[in-house]
Amino acid sequence: MMRNVAILGASGYTGAELVRLIAGHRGLRIAALSADRKAGMRMGEVFPHLRHLDLPPLVRIDEIDMGAIDLVFCALPHATSQAVIASLPRDMKIVDLSADFRLRDAAEYRRWYGQPHAAPELQAEAVYGLTEFYRDEIRAARLVAGTGCNAATGQYALRPLIAAGLIDLDEIVMDLKCGVSGAGRSLKENLLHAELSEGWHPYAVGGIHRHLGEFDQEFSALAGRPVEVQFTPHLVPGNRGILATCYVRGAAGDIHAALAGAYADEPFVLTLPMGEVPSTRHVRGSNYCHLGVVEDRRAGRAIVVAALDNLTKGSSGQALQNANLMLSLEETEGLTMAPLFP
Amino acid sequence: MMRNVAILGASGYTGAELVRLIAGHRGLRIAALSADRKAGMRMGEVFPHLRHLDLPPLVRIDEIDMGAIDLVFCALPHATSQAVIASLPRDMKIVDLSADFRLRDAAEYRRWYGQPHAAPELQAEAVYGLTEFYRDEIRAARLVAGTGCNAATGQYALRPLIAAGLIDLDEIVMDLKCGVSGAGRSLKENLLHAELSEGWHPYAVGGIHRHLGEFDQEFSALAGRPVEVQFTPHLVPGNRGILATCYVRGAAGDIHAALAGAYADEPFVLTLPMGEVPSTRHVRGSNYCHLGVVEDRRAGRAIVVAALDNLTKGSSGQALQNANLMLSLEETEGLTMAPLFP
Amino acid sequence: MMRNVAILGASGYTGAELVRLIAGHRGLRIAALSADRKAGMRMGEVFPHLRHLDLPPLVRIDEIDMGAIDLVFCALPHATSQAVIASLPRDMKIVDLSADFRLRDAAEYRRWYGQPHAAPELQAEAVYGLTEFYRDEIRAARLVAGTGCNAATGQYALRPLIAAGLIDLDEIVMDLKCGVSGAGRSLKENLLHAELSEGWHPYAVGGIHRHLGEFDQEFSALAGRPVEVQFTPHLVPGNRGILATCYVRGAAGDIHAALAGAYADEPFVLTLPMGEVPSTRHVRGSNYCHLGVVEDRRAGRAIVVAALDNLTKGSSGQALQNANLMLSLEETEGLTMAPLFP
Amino acid sequence: MMRNVAILGASGYTGAELVRLIAGHRGLRIAALSADRKAGMRMGEVFPHLRHLDLPPLVRIDEIDMGAIDLVFCALPHATSQAVIASLPRDMKIVDLSADFRLRDAAEYRRWYGQPHAAPELQAEAVYGLTEFYRDEIRAARLVAGTGCNAATGQYALRPLIAAGLIDLDEIVMDLKCGVSGAGRSLKENLLHAELSEGWHPYAVGGIHRHLGEFDQEFSALAGRPVEVQFTPHLVPGNRGILATCYVRGAAGDIHAALAGAYADEPFVLTLPMGEVPSTRHVRGSNYCHLGVVEDRRAGRAIVVAALDNLTKGSSGQALQNANLMLSLEETEGLTMAPLFP
Repeated sequence: MMRNVAILGASGYTGAELVRLIAGHRGLRIAALSADRKAGMRMGEVFPHLRHLDLPPLVRIDEIDMGAIDLVFCALPHATSQAVIASLPRDMKIVDLSADFRLRDAAEYRRWYGQPHAAPELQAEAVYGLTEFYRDEIRAARLVAGTGCNAATGQYALRPLIAAGLIDLDEIVMDLKCGVSGAGRSLKENLLHAELSEGWHPYAVGGIHRHLGEFDQEFSALAGRPVEVQFTPHLVPGNRGILATCYVRGAAGDIHAALAGAYADEPFVLTLPMGEVPSTRHVRGSNYCHLGVVEDRRAGRAIVVAALDNLTKGSSGQALQNANLMLSLEETEGLTMAPLFP
Repeated sequence: MMRNVAILGASGYTGAELVRLIAGHRGLRIAALSADRKAGMRMGEVFPHLRHLDLPPLVRIDEIDMGAIDLVFCALPHATSQAVIASLPRDMKIVDLSADFRLRDAAEYRRWYGQPHAAPELQAEAVYGLTEFYRDEIRAARLVAGTGCNAATGQYALRPLIAAGLIDLDEIVMDLKCGVSGAGRSLKENLLHAELSEGWHPYAVGGIHRHLGEFDQEFSALAGRPVEVQFTPHLVPGNRGILATCYVRGAAGDIHAALAGAYADEPFVLTLPMGEVPSTRHVRGSNYCHLGVVEDRRAGRAIVVAALDNLTKGSSGQALQNANLMLSLEETEGLTMAPLFP
Repeated sequence: MMRNVAILGASGYTGAELVRLIAGHRGLRIAALSADRKAGMRMGEVFPHLRHLDLPPLVRIDEIDMGAIDLVFCALPHATSQAVIASLPRDMKIVDLSADFRLRDAAEYRRWYGQPHAAPELQAEAVYGLTEFYRDEIRAARLVAGTGCNAATGQYALRPLIAAGLIDLDEIVMDLKCGVSGAGRSLKENLLHAELSEGWHPYAVGGIHRHLGEFDQEFSALAGRPVEVQFTPHLVPGNRGILATCYVRGAAGDIHAALAGAYADEPFVLTLPMGEVPSTRHVRGSNYCHLGVVEDRRAGRAIVVAALDNLTKGSSGQALQNANLMLSLEETEGLTMAPLFP
Repeated sequence: MMRNVAILGASGYTGAELVRLIAGHRGLRIAALSADRKAGMRMGEVFPHLRHLDLPPLVRIDEIDMGAIDLVFCALPHATSQAVIASLPRDMKIVDLSADFRLRDAAEYRRWYGQPHAAPELQAEAVYGLTEFYRDEIRAARLVAGTGCNAATGQYALRPLIAAGLIDLDEIVMDLKCGVSGAGRSLKENLLHAELSEGWHPYAVGGIHRHLGEFDQEFSALAGRPVEVQFTPHLVPGNRGILATCYVRGAAGDIHAALAGAYADEPFVLTLPMGEVPSTRHVRGSNYCHLGVVEDRRAGRAIVVAALDNLTKGSSGQALQNANLMLSLEETEGLTMAPLFP
């Protein structure tokens, strides 16, 4: 039996990525696609790479018959998402890809996003969507909040180490290198090809990036005490990929063993042999996350490196993995395609 | 029942692309992988993007038990391929991705490749692998010769027009823009990132590119008279994709109708609405070919544009499509993934 | 004695390129910079690569004391330019980089640009700024109209051949491959890095690109009869560069000789040895144009290839070269830097 | 009076960059160019972007009349350089761009480069070429050792802070993002466009990169005690540029003041306003280095970011700046061109 899904906000990159993934899924059918400003257009006009698919037309959200939908993917902008989700049937299963339900604490939401939350009761209900660490909760959830793509990358590298008490919680430096698709299909001067393509630079430096709210929440909960990492993202001239280089204090051998153990049975998170490091090009277009550990020349220090595709494992692939769990389908269905290289 | 395939020359880009495609195939199992210089290594070492797959080790060709193999993909360099294929069991089904069996005439082979053919009896037996136009022959073939990637692109644009007598056969100009992966994983100075990435240029100008041998053979056979096109390939700073801009004499409306008609039932060749043009980014990583037709301001002239991914529809995807036919499997199996964009 | 220049529209790419070039000029001083929406900002804020320079602040045009200015570079958008130039002192020397004064015929302007010209009397006065062919007129001109960047590239390849009657005027196909900076710093979805960087496509296909107005005007005047070329531009994923591949009928040897002869004494236009072809990467960031000629395998046909940097020789470099002439300075001053490679 | 220079190893990227810079120099003349394997070729064949220049032919080193040369730039590979320099006249002024004379201590050289030094007496004589900090010694030197490009970038960020005792010497993390031209024009698989262009990764992780020898030497000398930084370089898909993100302990305000003060009179090192960060695209093709300082959210921590062009300020531009000093020419001559953007 095919389940019907709707994708709200299908005209953005995460929406298109969901369509790409679900097009090859044996248990899901795309029953509705919404795009406010582009309602009335066909998906193949907005994203010509999807023109071979037989897809429903883009409509306004209120045109969708929600009674026929089994699960909604909400790929809307932050703030819009909470209003839309609040208006959906109370028993509708929802995977939200925005930032709106990632932070459990309303005060933290207001602090990082600069405005009060419009649906605090839903905020309390939402399950944080980092699949490997919230699998049981996600299975039982009605509303799952997709993680930030940077937040996912860093957590794959560090959660098992924090949980096992292997690293100094006060001395964590995370330096991220991010592809441009993470910024979405928005018309900003700094995202133009001519502006971006032949250089690289840090942004949101000094601890002001919103994904820090997620790191603080998750790492502190895991450690049972406040944890504040240093985190600097950089924009590099590529479309897909996040590479997190994490500088930690701890024994490299133990760290590698902890990661290898934690992910031993995970289908999508691979720990490379000790001393090897991942590259974003080797996970590009896939739902895989590669992890590497190297011992530093300075005793008691290690470098942990994580790589994933921000549009797949970092957002839409994660969303589909969670939807599979919520609908009691095979968790890996639609997600096992190999990366595209070169 | 799974069929066993071997991939000879698995350490090149077309070999890796075959693995990527077959990894998701429901009827084929990769039973053997060869790579002469890298024998003894694991595929995941040579191509880390494939490290999550459970694959046989790379071996020398003579280490493969051919008795257990149902079909061989031969992704070896030109000239090597004919020697290896000549040594395989005479009843082995083979899809060759090299240039060795594309030209039916031994003199033409010698003219374009500068040396006599080493297996002329096999050359006569080989079927030209442009699936949509040789489907029945391919189904019945033992040895199928994969087409040149440029040759495939140009033929998708022009074969139906030549067959229908819609264009002036003496006035065909084909200007191609090709991504760099078509040159393979070879260590050449002009393929270095620093050399290639910020510029573009024509190469093999004036009618000396080897794929012209295929155009001459196929177009002349189709027309029943000699046809010589003008053809200039250009190297552009991207990894995947070929865009063929074809300048022809004929009525644009008739041309569009002929293409739309010829490919109406084809699963992988799409004719865009009249006046729209394709982009390589919209077929990237997929087995789709997009075609567009535009009328020129000068009466009686039209521009026909074709776009495909040289590693997929231009070589390894085509090879798998042909293998599906040869093994009586569903023709589209393993090939319907959507393009990767962005 | 330093001459004072003003650059109107300094917040666009051609404005910034003028600043880059004039910063190293020994006879010109940048006395004023205008940028309507960014008035009040410093140039180094708008273009941080220029932050080391001591430059006047960005102001509105009406804030500039034109009495102190010897020459104005007008790098404003099309249509805006004609209104601004009409308001400048009638004896002010002006180099305009917009399309507003390229077409001498008001009807042609209206045809290609879709609106009547607002300053037809200035249109008549303007000299077409293709330096090598209008040098004497430019020296004496008050108002020089910079050429289209595509129009310049194609004319370098073909003017000497048309002038000498060496090619068939009815059979000219020009296939151009253009970098993205030619589209300016405008916020358009198709110019985003994620949209553009991994593919290529034709645009304005079929004879509708506005630069055709220039080709028609110039080639027809040169030939003494109407000449209409076929012209298809393509957008490729690079920032700077135009490559024109021109398919012509004529004797390749004569064609090469004609180009080599025509440009023998030109400082910036180089004819490569017969059979060699240029690359945009070898003129990048410079005022040089490289030309190559190859004989086709089909008798009586040749391919002429031209490469230049659209922001330098195709616009701002050309503008400075013309300004040098208008101010009786050394023509090459400020323009002889070598290309940037890699 | 023009001084004559020779460039040994002119067929590599640093050699070509020297030619680009010196071509516009008013006090230097390129009198000889060597390239062992390409002796007999013209520079314009090896680097077509330089074909407009009137340059001496490429010869073997022993064909150069050293009596006519005032200064030699040695752009040879590591290890080759020391042998060649040992064979040059003992009074010849030399700027070496290799790694051979960067480390003053023979044991350190052997440790980092894996072999004994072949010219230890010259090693002792060599002056470390970081212009801003060794200006007087360079003026008086016969042999100047160009710094590593990564080593230069990191030192610009940190030397004034270490000298002033403003940061914790035991807690320095340097995360570098480097363009590919730093690897030179060498035929390595991982430098191919198809391998490199759509991903990024760390390399030489854990404290094994040879430029650490320079950091150790210089920072320890400056501090008067051993200093060992953590340093991880990353390869990003761009041709030119190094971005160093340095995580330090200290007061951000003091740090910014120290940098601004140290470089206040320097022509090529710019300190951005507090809180702003540099980008490699804004120094591309130039001799400028941009520095930025941001306070971290965690008290007592700061991020210092440096950006420069590895081929210019990181090697050939630095070499020319030093040569200017050694020949008593204007220090900035030939080096003040603005960056190329876009």
